[in-house]
Amino acid sequence: MNLNGFYQVDYSKSDFPEVKIGTLGYGFMGQIHSNAFIKIPFSFSNPISRPVLLAICGRNQKKVEHIARRFGYKEYCLDWQLLAKDPRIDIFDNCAPDDWHYLPSILAMEKGKHVICEKPLSLKLDEAFQMAKKAQEVGVKTMCCYNYRFLPAVQLARQLIEQGTLGIIYQFRAKYLQQAGHNPFELVEKVWYAHGTQSGTLMGIGSHIIDMAYFLVGEITAVCGLKKTYNQIRKDSLGKDHPISADECTIAILEFKNGAVGTIESSGVSTGRKNYQGWEINGSKGSIFFDLEDLNHLQVYSTDINSPEIQGFSNVLVTDAEHPLQIKYLPSGHNQGWEYGHVHALHHFLDCVVNDKPVGPLGASFQDGYRVQVVIEAINQSSAKGKRVEIKDVGEDI
Amino acid sequence: MNLNGFYQVDYSKSDFPEVKIGTLGYGFMGQIHSNAFIKIPFSFSNPISRPVLLAICGRNQKKVEHIARRFGYKEYCLDWQLLAKDPRIDIFDNCAPDDWHYLPSILAMEKGKHVICEKPLSLKLDEAFQMAKKAQEVGVKTMCCYNYRFLPAVQLARQLIEQGTLGIIYQFRAKYLQQAGHNPFELVEKVWYAHGTQSGTLMGIGSHIIDMAYFLVGEITAVCGLKKTYNQIRKDSLGKDHPISADECTIAILEFKNGAVGTIESSGVSTGRKNYQGWEINGSKGSIFFDLEDLNHLQVYSTDINSPEIQGFSNVLVTDAEHPLQIKYLPSGHNQGWEYGHVHALHHFLDCVVNDKPVGPLGASFQDGYRVQVVIEAINQSSAKGKRVEIKDVGEDI
Amino acid sequence: MNLNGFYQVDYSKSDFPEVKIGTLGYGFMGQIHSNAFIKIPFSFSNPISRPVLLAICGRNQKKVEHIARRFGYKEYCLDWQLLAKDPRIDIFDNCAPDDWHYLPSILAMEKGKHVICEKPLSLKLDEAFQMAKKAQEVGVKTMCCYNYRFLPAVQLARQLIEQGTLGIIYQFRAKYLQQAGHNPFELVEKVWYAHGTQSGTLMGIGSHIIDMAYFLVGEITAVCGLKKTYNQIRKDSLGKDHPISADECTIAILEFKNGAVGTIESSGVSTGRKNYQGWEINGSKGSIFFDLEDLNHLQVYSTDINSPEIQGFSNVLVTDAEHPLQIKYLPSGHNQGWEYGHVHALHHFLDCVVNDKPVGPLGASFQDGYRVQVVIEAINQSSAKGKRVEIKDVGEDI
Amino acid sequence: MNLNGFYQVDYSKSDFPEVKIGTLGYGFMGQIHSNAFIKIPFSFSNPISRPVLLAICGRNQKKVEHIARRFGYKEYCLDWQLLAKDPRIDIFDNCAPDDWHYLPSILAMEKGKHVICEKPLSLKLDEAFQMAKKAQEVGVKTMCCYNYRFLPAVQLARQLIEQGTLGIIYQFRAKYLQQAGHNPFELVEKVWYAHGTQSGTLMGIGSHIIDMAYFLVGEITAVCGLKKTYNQIRKDSLGKDHPISADECTIAILEFKNGAVGTIESSGVSTGRKNYQGWEINGSKGSIFFDLEDLNHLQVYSTDINSPEIQGFSNVLVTDAEHPLQIKYLPSGHNQGWEYGHVHALHHFLDCVVNDKPVGPLGASFQDGYRVQVVIEAINQSSAKGKRVEIKDVGEDI
Repeated sequence: MNLNGFYQVDYSKSDFPEVKIGTLGYGFMGQIHSNAFIKIPFSFSNPISRPVLLAICGRNQKKVEHIARRFGYKEYCLDWQLLAKDPRIDIFDNCAPDDWHYLPSILAMEKGKHVICEKPLSLKLDEAFQMAKKAQEVGVKTMCCYNYRFLPAVQLARQLIEQGTLGIIYQFRAKYLQQAGHNPFELVEKVWYAHGTQSGTLMGIGSHIIDMAYFLVGEITAVCGLKKTYNQIRKDSLGKDHPISADECTIAILEFKNGAVGTIESSGVSTGRKNYQGWEINGSKGSIFFDLEDLNHLQVYSTDINSPEIQGFSNVLVTDAEHPLQIKYLPSGHNQGWEYGHVHALHHFLDCVVNDKPVGPLGASFQDGYRVQVVIEAINQSSAKGKRVEIKDVGEDI
Repeated sequence: MNLNGFYQVDYSKSDFPEVKIGTLGYGFMGQIHSNAFIKIPFSFSNPISRPVLLAICGRNQKKVEHIARRFGYKEYCLDWQLLAKDPRIDIFDNCAPDDWHYLPSILAMEKGKHVICEKPLSLKLDEAFQMAKKAQEVGVKTMCCYNYRFLPAVQLARQLIEQGTLGIIYQFRAKYLQQAGHNPFELVEKVWYAHGTQSGTLMGIGSHIIDMAYFLVGEITAVCGLKKTYNQIRKDSLGKDHPISADECTIAILEFKNGAVGTIESSGVSTGRKNYQGWEINGSKGSIFFDLEDLNHLQVYSTDINSPEIQGFSNVLVTDAEHPLQIKYLPSGHNQGWEYGHVHALHHFLDCVVNDKPVGPLGASFQDGYRVQVVIEAINQSSAKGKRVEIKDVGEDI
Repeated sequence: MNLNGFYQVDYSKSDFPEVKIGTLGYGFMGQIHSNAFIKIPFSFSNPISRPVLLAICGRNQKKVEHIARRFGYKEYCLDWQLLAKDPRIDIFDNCAPDDWHYLPSILAMEKGKHVICEKPLSLKLDEAFQMAKKAQEVGVKTMCCYNYRFLPAVQLARQLIEQGTLGIIYQFRAKYLQQAGHNPFELVEKVWYAHGTQSGTLMGIGSHIIDMAYFLVGEITAVCGLKKTYNQIRKDSLGKDHPISADECTIAILEFKNGAVGTIESSGVSTGRKNYQGWEINGSKGSIFFDLEDLNHLQVYSTDINSPEIQGFSNVLVTDAEHPLQIKYLPSGHNQGWEYGHVHALHHFLDCVVNDKPVGPLGASFQDGYRVQVVIEAINQSSAKGKRVEIKDVGEDI
Repeated sequence: MNLNGFYQVDYSKSDFPEVKIGTLGYGFMGQIHSNAFIKIPFSFSNPISRPVLLAICGRNQKKVEHIARRFGYKEYCLDWQLLAKDPRIDIFDNCAPDDWHYLPSILAMEKGKHVICEKPLSLKLDEAFQMAKKAQEVGVKTMCCYNYRFLPAVQLARQLIEQGTLGIIYQFRAKYLQQAGHNPFELVEKVWYAHGTQSGTLMGIGSHIIDMAYFLVGEITAVCGLKKTYNQIRKDSLGKDHPISADECTIAILEFKNGAVGTIESSGVSTGRKNYQGWEINGSKGSIFFDLEDLNHLQVYSTDINSPEIQGFSNVLVTDAEHPLQIKYLPSGHNQGWEYGHVHALHHFLDCVVNDKPVGPLGASFQDGYRVQVVIEAINQSSAKGKRVEIKDVGEDI
């Protein structure tokens, strides 16, 4: 419609099918997911859909209303069951705290919604199993939001492995190091892994690199682990002592089905490591390494080069047209931020929903999310018993 | 309003005053600015306003409508004069090609709009002068969008210099290197600096580091420059030869009013340098350096340390609460992408408009934009004459 | 004595007491030790002695004579017993292959000589025990040449830990990665760890980082290990198959008496890692990391800094007067090569011999060398049994 | 001769022809050259000769005798004329202070000796010219010791350029930054470039990168320079003021005969830069960069690669058998120290002397040394006049 030379934009056009989103949780993850959904229509050459931020849910009315307004939601509510059941919603996006992953996700699946759930799938292995099982039974699309799979550097890593650039994979070593609790006198409220559910670092960040191990190297068959709590008492802001049982550091040796071996380490006390997820993979023909604090680069060593005298780890800036997961409006050399892991992950999920594609192997389904929980349980058992534990002896098959 | 437990979000609330945006140009910059405006309401703890994407203007109806729809504009138009004059618009955002900076910006200012204009202010020195002069006369807020000022690392750099952490500034050396034209056989259409207006690398990217010199070190008093075109003929995609006069590389020695000296270099033929804006500043008490391809870090050497044996360039990840320009939803260690330079720049401009603050010294006003053009002209003259040129002898005072 | 204006240098002066060296082995290590002895008199401000290269011993007369002549030895011999017994020799320097560490070192100690022995002390735990015991009985100075202790960066690391700069030590993680065997088709003769005694990577290079763990973090109390041989058959240059039992990779989790935990990993198949000994230590107040391929730097993060906004890992070039183990003729910024680990180690040993000082804790005595072997044995047992092994249950006390 | 099983080493064998060295100067350079000569016989697979440290000369008897004894010289003397004339000496190695390069080198050449002279050839252009002319007339071998040509990374750089790996050379940018004078209150005696002859940073370290420009890129045709002294008065240790005229920083734009352009910068006030010689070369097909503080690596970007998605600057550790200037006893991954520049340079000169080969183009002859002085003079003139100076208009041809 032309109004004195101005045309109104017609949003009814079918090339951007709308998908309605209901978001549970308005904290860090609720905001990051909302941002990602908002960016999708203009971030890709061929956007699959226009996500509509229909409603967001949280318990504190003032806060949830504030976030809803800032991110442009149409509605908000205070009761998760309302959201999980609402027939208008296509995708239920569970960004609630970890101990609220189970019930709402189950209900939403039962109501036939496609469900995204933040990682870890659940703090309890059995709940995770039930979630994965329910997903299979109901047949909706599910994704456990292991966002780091969807960084361009990580996708490039997977491509190189699949193309054989690295040859036979020998070794994987991954660390996820943060520093929230490095100071023994830090108040318990400031130490995420020791506060509230005391989820610990293996569950909170170690889970990411277990998923990465599966994503890049493949099935894990056995583990040998050690969990450690250095600071077993912390004060809260009122001066009260709190006993801490959550692991501040977990180390595990991994054995893979394909013969590779590796280590993972999660830590919340590594002074100076702000958000260091570093991993390296060595293969018979090449090696790669990555550092999340420098997420637009992948270091690649390949022996498949004509001039051996210039062989070295190549500092690949993964922002070119040749690279996976490029953003339409960012030319070569223009870095993606951390948030793009979620942008790409949610974009992938929308593609799966709209075009009825499988979430895996690129995305982590609830089955994949459960698999990570099994490894965590195996590491817990190994640490407690002081011996090697085989994955097949832990959890139920799915 | 509570509808069966759902509350509609009330956007009429006054804590997010709306500011209406009219965007000229739907290319790279039009998209980057649109993205930035969209992100502002939820990116900051205390968002100053909710920018409303009212209308976008471009000559190709199909393309402009497509972009309008993807970014959520309400309207679009095909005639820049309509947009520049429209009384509904508070901020006229000029993201048009360089040779369309002048006329629309002048008209919008005359119509009393606040104006953002992409850099460089103009390809012609006189036009830049007229723009700066008009801005002064009309008294609207203006900003020449030198976005790199608004990266957290750059703001930290400025803070350190202002606090005296670096002591007396001795040296500045900056390079802005890209590779679009490194291959002599690259078609002219693929080489941005040699195509169309043949703006060259000094104008296109060198301008950024001249502004950076002003922003971090201060007033430039003299230059000595050399412009170079290596590949003086390029073919187009039809096989036709095009003579190239645009500089592919410019080098200049700078002298500053405060006694510092320095160099700048712009290049479009530096193979392997995707978007390398690197600069270093040495002072009597410390030094800093920066690389745009790793934009979340600033390297800082300070002699003000108790333990000289651990002195070295400190690889500062500028994502902590202590650092300038942090984003609400990004915790420590979660990197900002390249686009945040624009997010922060436009957020700053909104603050200036809504709260009637001066754009400078943090933002670059049209006067600052003009100043950059004067230095470019001085470098051009110096290169042509083979001698040192003083800035006071170039351009008109403003 | 003045001869037409030239004065003959008088080497009889007492400020450079001579110490006579007998070197067993003329291979890589024999040459590196010889080079180090030669450099000592002019590398330090106050050289403790002038080592005299008296004799070198090896089985191949032509080769040993060639090396003797190149390095300036006065004599050579073919029989190690002759050398170990020779009364003229003050220091017996055992640079023979690993399986020739035991007998010659024992004999030399019995003959009252001070003995340097290359690492590992022996391939057999019992032999290592006998060597350490003999050293205690006889009372000579002994050093197991763990040269990496004597890099300036490593000494700085130890200083920082001892001064409390890192606070409570939480974590140690070390990797020693090389690539000799990465290609499954590499001939067995080219793969040092799989050839001859098949000493493996844990013994050959892992031993270095076990010693580093002791040197920097302290006593190890338990281990959990995994040994891996990927390529169990390799051809030799005649085309014959060789079964390989040597580990190509070993990973172990370490527990320390002081509460720290850690990992070590040795590998001979890590493509692209030429000689990568990398380790990191995280403490409650700071962290450090190191990479042998960049041995003149130590990365240091300290929270003890007045300006938290410039906190980051500091890239410390350890070549200043403030740093340990500086070389007289190398000013600040002039890097030491890899060989200086041995120069400093042997210089330290000469100091211990000439001035009757203890070799430890800076140098590794034979007792320290034995301690490393015990940990290797514990890792072997842990890998075989699939369970955690306590160090106190392995080997004999000394 | 076999003495109870010991054989005396026979040094009369002809495969190590002796070359007799007379060294003038016992300071930093005298020591570094002596160390290099000592290392040569055992550092290479096929050592060309055994340099004999015959005599060293200096004015302070106590000090010269001390150095003579530490480095193993047979004799010393106090009068440079004696040394320059001594018929026993084959190579006269001039490591005296810069203002003592001229007379002794001239005399030694007149006496038919091969002459090594530390850089710069002379502080006075005319003297440098006379030295180069004398070398041509007399026909002896001469080398101006630009040692950085003889780092493996630099030789690899030259190889890559010569092989065409970088394509057409577009740009060279080099900085040689140190920090001796960064503190305005540093005493004049501690600031090498401002003390004594006040040679300045262009002469002292800038000369190295001018030679590097010639070595890697080729003939320089024009310059545009700026010299700067920030701290024009410094106190000495007695509290007396000294006027400083020496440049603390020099910047110059270079034009090369082959069409390349570039910059050089020398500085003695760059806080945090201990010995930073950094340079980068961009060509149409690839780029390289180097940092002397990390001298075992060269960063190489080559577009001649089958997999563009893994293209990046490759961090090449130049310690493999494929790399130039490897040392016999250092396997892959075992870094060379800074001193090896001199080891390789002097080894090259011995080769030229013994086998009558030309010193160039690998080594810098006196003619090459003179050429550097001409560029320095051109930069001086350009800075004084504020205009571009052509090299052909400076100095005399040779």
